[in-house]
Amino acid sequence: MKIIVDVEGCDYPEKMVGGCIDSAKAHPDYTIVIVGRKETVNKVYSGGLNNIEIVEVEDAVTNDDVPTRVIRQKPDSSLVRAFTILKENDDAIGIVSAGSTGAVLTCATLIIGRISKSLHRPVVTSLMPTKIDGKLVCIADAGSTMDALPEYMAQYAIMGSVYMRASFGIEKPRVGLLSVGTEEKKGDERTKAAHALIKELPVNFVGNVEAREALSGDYDVIVTDGFAGNVLTKAVEGTAKFVMTKLKEAIMGSASAKFGYLFMKKAFNSVRSAMDYHRYDGGAFLGVNKIVLKSHGSSNEMSVRVSVDRIVSMYENKVIDGIREGIASTVVKSAETNEEE
Amino acid sequence: MKIIVDVEGCDYPEKMVGGCIDSAKAHPDYTIVIVGRKETVNKVYSGGLNNIEIVEVEDAVTNDDVPTRVIRQKPDSSLVRAFTILKENDDAIGIVSAGSTGAVLTCATLIIGRISKSLHRPVVTSLMPTKIDGKLVCIADAGSTMDALPEYMAQYAIMGSVYMRASFGIEKPRVGLLSVGTEEKKGDERTKAAHALIKELPVNFVGNVEAREALSGDYDVIVTDGFAGNVLTKAVEGTAKFVMTKLKEAIMGSASAKFGYLFMKKAFNSVRSAMDYHRYDGGAFLGVNKIVLKSHGSSNEMSVRVSVDRIVSMYENKVIDGIREGIASTVVKSAETNEEE
Repeated sequence: MKIIVDVEGCDYPEKMVGGCIDSAKAHPDYTIVIVGRKETVNKVYSGGLNNIEIVEVEDAVTNDDVPTRVIRQKPDSSLVRAFTILKENDDAIGIVSAGSTGAVLTCATLIIGRISKSLHRPVVTSLMPTKIDGKLVCIADAGSTMDALPEYMAQYAIMGSVYMRASFGIEKPRVGLLSVGTEEKKGDERTKAAHALIKELPVNFVGNVEAREALSGDYDVIVTDGFAGNVLTKAVEGTAKFVMTKLKEAIMGSASAKFGYLFMKKAFNSVRSAMDYHRYDGGAFLGVNKIVLKSHGSSNEMSVRVSVDRIVSMYENKVIDGIREGIASTVVKSAETNEEE
Repeated sequence: MKIIVDVEGCDYPEKMVGGCIDSAKAHPDYTIVIVGRKETVNKVYSGGLNNIEIVEVEDAVTNDDVPTRVIRQKPDSSLVRAFTILKENDDAIGIVSAGSTGAVLTCATLIIGRISKSLHRPVVTSLMPTKIDGKLVCIADAGSTMDALPEYMAQYAIMGSVYMRASFGIEKPRVGLLSVGTEEKKGDERTKAAHALIKELPVNFVGNVEAREALSGDYDVIVTDGFAGNVLTKAVEGTAKFVMTKLKEAIMGSASAKFGYLFMKKAFNSVRSAMDYHRYDGGAFLGVNKIVLKSHGSSNEMSVRVSVDRIVSMYENKVIDGIREGIASTVVKSAETNEEE
């Protein structure tokens, strides 16, 4: 089986190649297909692994490209080539890209295609750490669809549940709905309508969750519209960085604290590492016909390795089939407040 | 001049009374009117300050009361009495309450009244710390109005600017609009429409701001709808707590780190204190005819003191007049995407 890695269009293409080498060594039964510029690959990889394939390209998608136009305008970019290879090869099971989010989603939707006609929208998920060591929470939507209808969000609950069950072995993933209070009547109209829909679904819905409790470990999946999901994930990222920076400043401003820090470096690093998104990287794009992981723009070797590990686990646990069945077997009623789509 | 403090309906009524005593001592030219139960007040205050007045009540509003019904159902509650005193006395300039947010907003709107008929909605603000020491950022709306129209948000930009200028002496407060990307076209329909409206206003609009940058210190006011504003403020609060807890755990799990911590306690406490919402407490409710500060439900002495200080500064800097003029002199066009109101 093949796993495709688009190494261009991100901050550190060479680190992406490095991650491919690590992944190939860790997964000898899988072939890693590196799609990238010759010079990028050659800087890091000089051959020697027989489960690495190189596909040389001349072009890359940048954040300045209009996502919906890249397929037509940049057919020879690493991104479009990578997705085309993924589509055309039955033994290609998934892809990692750290390129432009919009372009990745466009290629996933248009080249790979939605899992089912009854799926309203695929969804970008994001994994975040929680108070419970080793336990992650999946945010769906982490920012892909603006102005989601409640029906979309209900399907995010289904897809998120399948994903967390298949990838992390959680038997009954607890699904929370992001809102401004735990009571069912709290929230904006969209969220209240989504609450009513999700309540009827065969998922382990535990009600509304406030942003303050998102990292509590009491939830496996947090469903939200893309706007609020983006605010949540970025606020967590920004605040964690903010607190660590403030602490560092306070420590550096005091000689005794600096001395104390020598003894605590390890403790600090363990927290910094717990908050390091590279460790959870590769937000899964759920609802398309193959496994698509969108990695952070500043991905490093570890991000690629984590993403490839996750693709293997998602493949072995048949996530795509699970989502397809989940969506097919569950009729989401139309929310009363909205008539579109 | 009188400042009214509702000491009931919160977690620590006695601490509220303690804060009143501190405030009375700090502001001898102002009279603090404590509205609360006899037993609450007597536990902490035994008289002796001639700028404290006590108004005894028998009842208090709880979080179980339906906010819109408290005025009729609990006319003798500390909250309703406090607002009535505020309304009926020309020398009463402002109020602090740590009671139920919904009830405080209902009383403010119905008893005190909107500042102008052309104001769509008053707004709850929240102050948060930033990377720059001593510099705060005002989030408007921090969670009061769900399903805001873009016109509401445009008026939040005006009110937030006046507030930050008058309260903190910032000449041209930098206004950012919370969105999922800095480009003007990024965001949901509401935010894009609000962007177009705010751009035309006489405020120092610096464009969209991502949640990751909310605490950067580059913004004085962040405009958002109440849902996303609640997500932002609570995510910041929850994540800060999360990181500090993780660090504490890591420290306690290692003998050498515990030793090191002895030398760093001060640095830790300075950060904990920087993140302590009690220091910034009293979210101003802007757009009503008097100064209304809603303090955190778990307010302590410091929260009251900070709130009273802010009321004095808002009064002396004529915030209410400023907001009235700002709203009156600025025509906010109707957003094209919405026809309501």
